[in-house]
Amino acid sequence: MDATGEVSAKYWDVTADEKEAFAAMELVKVQGSVQTYRDKLQVKISRIRKAVEEDNISLTDFIKAAPISPNDLINTIKRTMNEIQDQHIKTIVAYCLAKVEDKLMEYPAAKFHHHAYFAGLAYHIVRMLELGDFICKQRPFLNVDLIKAGIILHDIAKPEEMNAQLGIVTDYSDHGKLIGHIVMASNWIVEAAITHQIPLDSRQVVALQHMVLSHHNLGEWGSPVQPQLPEAVALHYIDAMDAKLQMVEDALANTAETESWTPMIRGLENKALMRLTFDE
Amino acid sequence: MDATGEVSAKYWDVTADEKEAFAAMELVKVQGSVQTYRDKLQVKISRIRKAVEEDNISLTDFIKAAPISPNDLINTIKRTMNEIQDQHIKTIVAYCLAKVEDKLMEYPAAKFHHHAYFAGLAYHIVRMLELGDFICKQRPFLNVDLIKAGIILHDIAKPEEMNAQLGIVTDYSDHGKLIGHIVMASNWIVEAAITHQIPLDSRQVVALQHMVLSHHNLGEWGSPVQPQLPEAVALHYIDAMDAKLQMVEDALANTAETESWTPMIRGLENKALMRLTFDE
Amino acid sequence: MDATGEVSAKYWDVTADEKEAFAAMELVKVQGSVQTYRDKLQVKISRIRKAVEEDNISLTDFIKAAPISPNDLINTIKRTMNEIQDQHIKTIVAYCLAKVEDKLMEYPAAKFHHHAYFAGLAYHIVRMLELGDFICKQRPFLNVDLIKAGIILHDIAKPEEMNAQLGIVTDYSDHGKLIGHIVMASNWIVEAAITHQIPLDSRQVVALQHMVLSHHNLGEWGSPVQPQLPEAVALHYIDAMDAKLQMVEDALANTAETESWTPMIRGLENKALMRLTFDE
Amino acid sequence: MDATGEVSAKYWDVTADEKEAFAAMELVKVQGSVQTYRDKLQVKISRIRKAVEEDNISLTDFIKAAPISPNDLINTIKRTMNEIQDQHIKTIVAYCLAKVEDKLMEYPAAKFHHHAYFAGLAYHIVRMLELGDFICKQRPFLNVDLIKAGIILHDIAKPEEMNAQLGIVTDYSDHGKLIGHIVMASNWIVEAAITHQIPLDSRQVVALQHMVLSHHNLGEWGSPVQPQLPEAVALHYIDAMDAKLQMVEDALANTAETESWTPMIRGLENKALMRLTFDE
Amino acid sequence: MDATGEVSAKYWDVTADEKEAFAAMELVKVQGSVQTYRDKLQVKISRIRKAVEEDNISLTDFIKAAPISPNDLINTIKRTMNEIQDQHIKTIVAYCLAKVEDKLMEYPAAKFHHHAYFAGLAYHIVRMLELGDFICKQRPFLNVDLIKAGIILHDIAKPEEMNAQLGIVTDYSDHGKLIGHIVMASNWIVEAAITHQIPLDSRQVVALQHMVLSHHNLGEWGSPVQPQLPEAVALHYIDAMDAKLQMVEDALANTAETESWTPMIRGLENKALMRLTFDE
Amino acid sequence: MDATGEVSAKYWDVTADEKEAFAAMELVKVQGSVQTYRDKLQVKISRIRKAVEEDNISLTDFIKAAPISPNDLINTIKRTMNEIQDQHIKTIVAYCLAKVEDKLMEYPAAKFHHHAYFAGLAYHIVRMLELGDFICKQRPFLNVDLIKAGIILHDIAKPEEMNAQLGIVTDYSDHGKLIGHIVMASNWIVEAAITHQIPLDSRQVVALQHMVLSHHNLGEWGSPVQPQLPEAVALHYIDAMDAKLQMVEDALANTAETESWTPMIRGLENKALMRLTFDE
Repeated sequence: MDATGEVSAKYWDVTADEKEAFAAMELVKVQGSVQTYRDKLQVKISRIRKAVEEDNISLTDFIKAAPISPNDLINTIKRTMNEIQDQHIKTIVAYCLAKVEDKLMEYPAAKFHHHAYFAGLAYHIVRMLELGDFICKQRPFLNVDLIKAGIILHDIAKPEEMNAQLGIVTDYSDHGKLIGHIVMASNWIVEAAITHQIPLDSRQVVALQHMVLSHHNLGEWGSPVQPQLPEAVALHYIDAMDAKLQMVEDALANTAETESWTPMIRGLENKALMRLTFDE
Repeated sequence: MDATGEVSAKYWDVTADEKEAFAAMELVKVQGSVQTYRDKLQVKISRIRKAVEEDNISLTDFIKAAPISPNDLINTIKRTMNEIQDQHIKTIVAYCLAKVEDKLMEYPAAKFHHHAYFAGLAYHIVRMLELGDFICKQRPFLNVDLIKAGIILHDIAKPEEMNAQLGIVTDYSDHGKLIGHIVMASNWIVEAAITHQIPLDSRQVVALQHMVLSHHNLGEWGSPVQPQLPEAVALHYIDAMDAKLQMVEDALANTAETESWTPMIRGLENKALMRLTFDE
Repeated sequence: MDATGEVSAKYWDVTADEKEAFAAMELVKVQGSVQTYRDKLQVKISRIRKAVEEDNISLTDFIKAAPISPNDLINTIKRTMNEIQDQHIKTIVAYCLAKVEDKLMEYPAAKFHHHAYFAGLAYHIVRMLELGDFICKQRPFLNVDLIKAGIILHDIAKPEEMNAQLGIVTDYSDHGKLIGHIVMASNWIVEAAITHQIPLDSRQVVALQHMVLSHHNLGEWGSPVQPQLPEAVALHYIDAMDAKLQMVEDALANTAETESWTPMIRGLENKALMRLTFDE
Repeated sequence: MDATGEVSAKYWDVTADEKEAFAAMELVKVQGSVQTYRDKLQVKISRIRKAVEEDNISLTDFIKAAPISPNDLINTIKRTMNEIQDQHIKTIVAYCLAKVEDKLMEYPAAKFHHHAYFAGLAYHIVRMLELGDFICKQRPFLNVDLIKAGIILHDIAKPEEMNAQLGIVTDYSDHGKLIGHIVMASNWIVEAAITHQIPLDSRQVVALQHMVLSHHNLGEWGSPVQPQLPEAVALHYIDAMDAKLQMVEDALANTAETESWTPMIRGLENKALMRLTFDE
Repeated sequence: MDATGEVSAKYWDVTADEKEAFAAMELVKVQGSVQTYRDKLQVKISRIRKAVEEDNISLTDFIKAAPISPNDLINTIKRTMNEIQDQHIKTIVAYCLAKVEDKLMEYPAAKFHHHAYFAGLAYHIVRMLELGDFICKQRPFLNVDLIKAGIILHDIAKPEEMNAQLGIVTDYSDHGKLIGHIVMASNWIVEAAITHQIPLDSRQVVALQHMVLSHHNLGEWGSPVQPQLPEAVALHYIDAMDAKLQMVEDALANTAETESWTPMIRGLENKALMRLTFDE
Repeated sequence: MDATGEVSAKYWDVTADEKEAFAAMELVKVQGSVQTYRDKLQVKISRIRKAVEEDNISLTDFIKAAPISPNDLINTIKRTMNEIQDQHIKTIVAYCLAKVEDKLMEYPAAKFHHHAYFAGLAYHIVRMLELGDFICKQRPFLNVDLIKAGIILHDIAKPEEMNAQLGIVTDYSDHGKLIGHIVMASNWIVEAAITHQIPLDSRQVVALQHMVLSHHNLGEWGSPVQPQLPEAVALHYIDAMDAKLQMVEDALANTAETESWTPMIRGLENKALMRLTFDE
């Protein structure tokens, strides 16, 4: 097991029966020996069987997950949604949230870069809400409703853009590839408005679409328009701050305590991070 | 009058009455003398009055316009729309077209770069339809319905993005700045689908949105997704070909016959074009 | 065989005799078994012999080729050349064409990106001539002779830049690496002019060199000058349109009917394409 | 006065005496009439005299300043400094702060982009400290001392890089142009360490230099190394968040209430911002 | 006169006779007074007449020129040419040099960036030859003939690309715009080879073309191929070194001794240079 | 052995004893057979033992080294240092040189790109001093002391940035990653000045720091400030010229005489170089 905390395993001479017996996302019990292959550790499996009840293990023991329970995360998001004063904005947020509430319980926020684990997206939203709350207090000219709604909606369509199981993105959906989660969320805002008879050219609908559409800041990062509302500028930086610091936190957590450097992190200018303490 | 075909005019010592009397987009008759100011010709106006019926002139004598009448352009667009075989696609195109049909009679295709004149957008669509028709015959694997619909819809929301009068863009609308014409058109497709009960995840709705969203090809040119349908690739190049060649045609038309070089053209890598003939 | 339509094969324990017996670009008959190696199919060859007459197969059964016969392609190119009115231009085109006529029968248009098969370059030229013909009719200000000549000459030196066999580029020539096909074609125009006593500063020579030199549009794409003649702008977009749509067509043709997505295509912004039909 | 809140004034026919009598950064009383010149308002001054005591005005009535008094800002910075636990870090921060304490009372944070007013730099530091405090609570893996020290030191040499009066940068110093404030601050850390006999290769010295050197994140933004400590990543995003939101706040404050759009803001992707309210 | 050493002058109320009397590139004698306009000095001319013999001045007193006489420069270039051992290379260099020998006596090396004065191009060549001589001695693996020839030929077509008088470029020629000096020089090499029956695919012809074509190093700087011969790499850096250091030298020479900073220099990353001495 | 002059070797079935017996950077004697693996030659080792005295070989027989002895290189650098007239500059150079004198005897100039061998850094400095000497004679406005000092100091901290053995960089130091050799050298100048009581704002200290800090020319290449002294411009181009031509020389030396093309060279725009001679 290297700094990444992962090790590959090989089971040679699989029988046809065995091939059918095991499926992805199932727990198994294996016996084998550890070898070195191309300078990496590798487990050569000698025996394998499905996990049974007596093994007393469950899938959630083996998956990375956000440090707060999905239920608590969803509750926080809903409570925040209910604090929104503007009725149009609250209605639209509720409509979009209802579309993915089940998936929010388990979807990651991204395939690789950050929060790539069980309930990672909900966790990302909740941490951003904390930061958004602070920023709104520090900068009272910001519209609190818009910040809250923008944070909840900015990645809300990601569970439809990606296919994921147990916090691991396996693929992008056709819809996700052709439209992208940013415009999908924008579509949902339109749907919500039509369904609830909120005029499409009302300030609320336009502002919410703008928040979602511009939150990647630049065209080359996927935003068809650039932030032009004070709250849209804030949303982009709240998102960036949380995503980048979570990459840092995850990289440190995934690096063995004995290592002073993490692997290179693509989202942080391809740099590795050093773990530094002064108290030695 | 220089190579641009424009000359500025100054009327000094305007009275308050006069200031109120004249409005933009009105015809006037002026008398004055031509001077040179900072190496450019300038008309110093000595007398000015509103045009009257006896002057026997009309606004359309003075504005640049597409070489085909707006009525003919709109008819061609509608006829093409009616040729679309797929009923969902035709319904969506008809819905979006109805939103801007009046404005299509006079809106330009852009503020500066190309087709910046009366009915320029409709003219751009019609020329692209001609080219699209050729390409579909040359490359039968392309879906004709999707090409036709994509061409009609790709810039369909521009009249809502811009404010224009007589073919001249005066400003962008708030809506246009915050959402952009690309996502506005995508919104209209969603609206059309909901209105006509076409499922939002039907292939037609997704494909039409994809065509519109990806037609600028790159994120830095405003497209939140890149072309991933054969027809979307074709649409981008049909649009580019028509826009660029129209820039060429317009630049030549606006340059005095006596000049062998046009002014620099921003959309053509900031290069000027040379008028070249071999028959001298 | 994956979506690329290719499968690798391994023949272990080759004898020295066998090593000498087989050469590249020869047909062989093999017998073997299919295995999986690193998640890809692989043929393990057990027996191998040269193809003989009785096998009743020919090399052209196994190579990708343009859908029109090389003879027909060359004839179309020559017929178009003969339609050129301007005698200087026609003379230069004829001179350059004569240099590579034999190779045009089989050379591809590029190593990887597009038309990478037998007679691919001639096919590319012919399809561009069709498109050029349409564009000249739609935009009568374009000089037809210059468009025709530019299309025929734009890649005419590619067969000297690359070494290819049976439509597959094996290497670039020293000459090709040091000068590049763009300047090589420009050199040939100079040669042609000197040979036929056409003044080097005549409009025809300068214009043809400009067409060839600028057809990649930007310096970073290999053009030492940018398009500054109307026809040079047109040539670039005709070339781009044909190359990109051929990439699309080839990618679809090389992808199994059962797959809805092609592999990623480098020349199309590294995106895969989706095969979409509405009639299901 | 346009959206920028500024208006130019012209005083023609100045006498030589008058020319000598008035200096920059002095208060004057003027009388004149307002005119339009090149579509902008302009004051034509008819009388001018120096301000006298009876006018009962002071310079600080006319300069933009941070909303908190310089004394309070400095006190907050010093109190934070004193909270630093690590003695080496505290010593170095104190040494650097002492070098510019007087100038911190009045220097802006930048020439144009953000906090460009009286005590703007101290204000920037204090707001960042508030944000840093929040982030350290939300992300306990961050070293609080390093965050505090990094925030105080990151721009500490700016008052030596720029020459400013009353919050307005008039010029860059030779030293500032040749070395830049980032390396100047890094130099001061070295000086501090040598003066106080802290080893130059101690973790504290290296970490503080790294914080300062990397806080612009990318080489093209002026940082010779990229963030490779968790706290350095945090510092960059704290700085970015505060600078960008202050640009937003300043732009709104400097735009007349009657205008819904601010001027374009260079630091915000050259976009203007819209003032949006929902309660109308 | 500011740091640029230039001052503009205005002559108002010109009579029609006077307008015809004076032409560009003629010497005149003026009388007038100095004023400030838009913060710049300006001469208001009160009297003007043509210079006459008695004024005892000549045009060359007023133009910037290389510090070595044109005759000496040309002689050095020719002597170096005659030292070339390879007869093919020498023949080609002689052919190209003969084409522009007269113009080399006075042409500048560029419109703005460097050596923008009388005989500037010849001076640039001669200084590069000195540097090339040193480099060939330091790095004996370089082919001396190729370095010498490359230096003489690299910009040899510039006098045909630009129109200049007295060392000042007034315009680019049509030929220069459409082909560019790099390919023009390459053409001349082809011409030379054909004229002197040197095979076009001989190593000498290919190498010389490669040297010229690649000397701008990158496509975006105008080179259609990148350096792939050792001597081509050397040529690019010899050219860059001489051009950049001449920009430095010219900027210092054109800046008043009393100024410590030059104006910004576009070719030096848009930076100004400081004049620094230690002996004060 | 391919064009790179390297061949990999495999020793299978290593015993635990053997694993401990051999360490990196020791000489061994092996016996084995040559095989082809993945189209590359590979030595399959059958016997291995440590080299003994009787083998009569030494480590320096097997490492790449600069063509001049380390002692001679160091002596040249010191002699040049002693020629510096300005006492402050000489003192600072001596201080920095003393810090790394031992390592200069063996350190390479870079990990991969150029002078990547034993004493490569010292060799780079010496060749640059030769070039600097020539340039100062050609351009007398340059300050000779500053050029000499800049050349000696520009990479002086590289031996602290990298860990190397026998001319091969094995790693970067923590210090090197967090501060970088450019700022480390700048730190040393500050240290030297403090130690020898040279004022930190003296022209000599500022100029030397500027030389070092700006010598990579652009921010994206690691320089926090851009060259703004004439000598800093010269230093950058002297460094570039020497590094690039050494890459050329090394690539040719490392390519078998029978090959006409070197491998691709990353530092030379990823191009391979052709070995060209005319005398065949």
